[in-house]
Amino acid sequence: MRIGLLGFGVVGRGVYDILASREDMKIVKVCCLEDVTLPDAEVTKDFQRILQDDTIDTVIEAMGGLHPAYEFVRACMEAGKNIVTSNKALVASYYDELLPLAAEKGLSFRCTAAVGGGIGWLSEVERSRRVQTITQVGGIMNGTCNYILDNMTRKGLDYNVVLKEAQALGYAEANPSTDVDGIDTWHKVILSSNIAFGVSLNRDQVPVAGISKIAASDVENFKAHGLVCKLISTGKCENGKYSVYVQPTLVKADTLEANVPMNYNLITLYGETSGRMSFYGQGAGRYPTAYNVVQDLVDLTEGKGFYSVYGPAVDVDNSEELTWYVRGSWQGDVAENWGGAVVTKAVSVSEMHAWIKQNPDAFVAAIRA
Amino acid sequence: MRIGLLGFGVVGRGVYDILASREDMKIVKVCCLEDVTLPDAEVTKDFQRILQDDTIDTVIEAMGGLHPAYEFVRACMEAGKNIVTSNKALVASYYDELLPLAAEKGLSFRCTAAVGGGIGWLSEVERSRRVQTITQVGGIMNGTCNYILDNMTRKGLDYNVVLKEAQALGYAEANPSTDVDGIDTWHKVILSSNIAFGVSLNRDQVPVAGISKIAASDVENFKAHGLVCKLISTGKCENGKYSVYVQPTLVKADTLEANVPMNYNLITLYGETSGRMSFYGQGAGRYPTAYNVVQDLVDLTEGKGFYSVYGPAVDVDNSEELTWYVRGSWQGDVAENWGGAVVTKAVSVSEMHAWIKQNPDAFVAAIRA
Repeated sequence: MRIGLLGFGVVGRGVYDILASREDMKIVKVCCLEDVTLPDAEVTKDFQRILQDDTIDTVIEAMGGLHPAYEFVRACMEAGKNIVTSNKALVASYYDELLPLAAEKGLSFRCTAAVGGGIGWLSEVERSRRVQTITQVGGIMNGTCNYILDNMTRKGLDYNVVLKEAQALGYAEANPSTDVDGIDTWHKVILSSNIAFGVSLNRDQVPVAGISKIAASDVENFKAHGLVCKLISTGKCENGKYSVYVQPTLVKADTLEANVPMNYNLITLYGETSGRMSFYGQGAGRYPTAYNVVQDLVDLTEGKGFYSVYGPAVDVDNSEELTWYVRGSWQGDVAENWGGAVVTKAVSVSEMHAWIKQNPDAFVAAIRA
Repeated sequence: MRIGLLGFGVVGRGVYDILASREDMKIVKVCCLEDVTLPDAEVTKDFQRILQDDTIDTVIEAMGGLHPAYEFVRACMEAGKNIVTSNKALVASYYDELLPLAAEKGLSFRCTAAVGGGIGWLSEVERSRRVQTITQVGGIMNGTCNYILDNMTRKGLDYNVVLKEAQALGYAEANPSTDVDGIDTWHKVILSSNIAFGVSLNRDQVPVAGISKIAASDVENFKAHGLVCKLISTGKCENGKYSVYVQPTLVKADTLEANVPMNYNLITLYGETSGRMSFYGQGAGRYPTAYNVVQDLVDLTEGKGFYSVYGPAVDVDNSEELTWYVRGSWQGDVAENWGGAVVTKAVSVSEMHAWIKQNPDAFVAAIRA
């Protein structure tokens, strides 16, 4: 396998390091903006050097972002090169363009590191589908949010204090919006659901609420009721109905989810014969992420394509009713008052997310029974 | 694939049910002691009917126990049939006979359901080894022990009360020794270590301590110190030294391990690039176990053999020093007194297990820092 690597940041460098000890796959060219010199690979700023090299059969996209990652990946696929990427935004956003193209061209397209970083999550979803129907996926898919919520819970500190600490330690970006507003998790649950259920979800119908409005007083409220707040994604397929959403969620203090520390992830699937299975590990970081990129390369050598057949477009139906913790000007039915906030009676997911859009300063969390 | 099934109990029946909906693999003969009639398979009490059927390429062993499971499996292998089994005692005990034979005959031999039931644990160890060195395996591998310890912790009940309840509910056998004395976990960690490290451990050097001496007063002691007791297996490979043991272990109440409920399992590996990864699911039960038996059959169709190369015989070195909770006539150095029991100063694993053998009525648990 002769590889072109796009991007030489955290993940790209990690992949290069791991591949240094392998004989069966070799990075021959690296396209990146940095000025680096490598003993055994050409480094170039000119993407055409990789695109037009017919000896390169596989391209690893480790640039991140949508553009020019999408244009580069698409051009490589048109030129007949297999793709491995860790870019969840790219795959979730261009699912309907990239997956049919991979099938048409007979190419491999793998993105295991895009969800769960070092966890073999998408590969296990693929394995699971060989034998059973998956009915639900989701969980804690963003290490930044988990780091912030975990520290707020353990230390009783306020959101902004913990966010600053997370930024100083490298657990959060200078502009943390993609993580704390749930966009990263949103991409990951859409991608996971598409693969697990063999469909292409209408992304515009998948609502997301983030954690940036949570306050120390909320966490105190949760503690008093034996609950812990986590940002949890859900993708369900029941009787042909797809229910998919991302929201802060209150779980009991003695559950696995409540005890996921630091920046770790915990992702779960429910299958018709296996029952519940959960997967825990580093959701990001140089070597865990690079580990799954290299796993994808090995899968390529074994002839694996994508994880599931590219499936039909489907609508999302979030009529499922839950009870909610709301701190804000909630006018609907109230079941309980919790120090300055309320617990609602049953309200559907779609209805509550519509309310959150109208009340952007409120903090809302679903309560998991 | 034409399959002969040995045993039609919990697991065998589950495999039959799952395969009913598949076209690519068919159970043609079942050898069992029960009087059953199947619409699409011959049922026989005569093992020779399967052994001598040259159209059967694959045999599933779902009988359990060592004899005649070993003799039947060996005979099938000599006759050139691939093997799938969920029998951890069989594979761990006859590792040095069965694995070289599989290699010599060019047969597939899979046993994913033998460790972790429905969890894709051994298959993930196999996947992990493609890319990295595994340095540690282990965890909560026995649902019966976890059920008992979890209920003692949640309800404050004594061991015998919870054991009786577990027996009534089918979570423990009438003779629970294999589970509560740690033998089942011992088989599983030996098998996991052999595969993860590519070796054949000297089994006689792997010590095991079980949970049958734990009392409600011990659990109270643990709670007072923010600890929870679980039966945990450990297999480490560090600088060519193999440290492998099974023992009750005290973990902090806010860890994943402490929050594994009911009869669930949580199994962990540490890899040089992935870091820690943990896998949670149903460690037993008809359909979870049958699920992984069928996964093994699919792996067979993809040409997979065993999980790792059959490796060299190695000795175990349990000189690792830990601190311990001991309720019994401990004469060694004491660091703390905990209501009728003591916490020792550092004592090696091998030394403590030798002491436990001399003091079979004591209850001992390692303390995980």
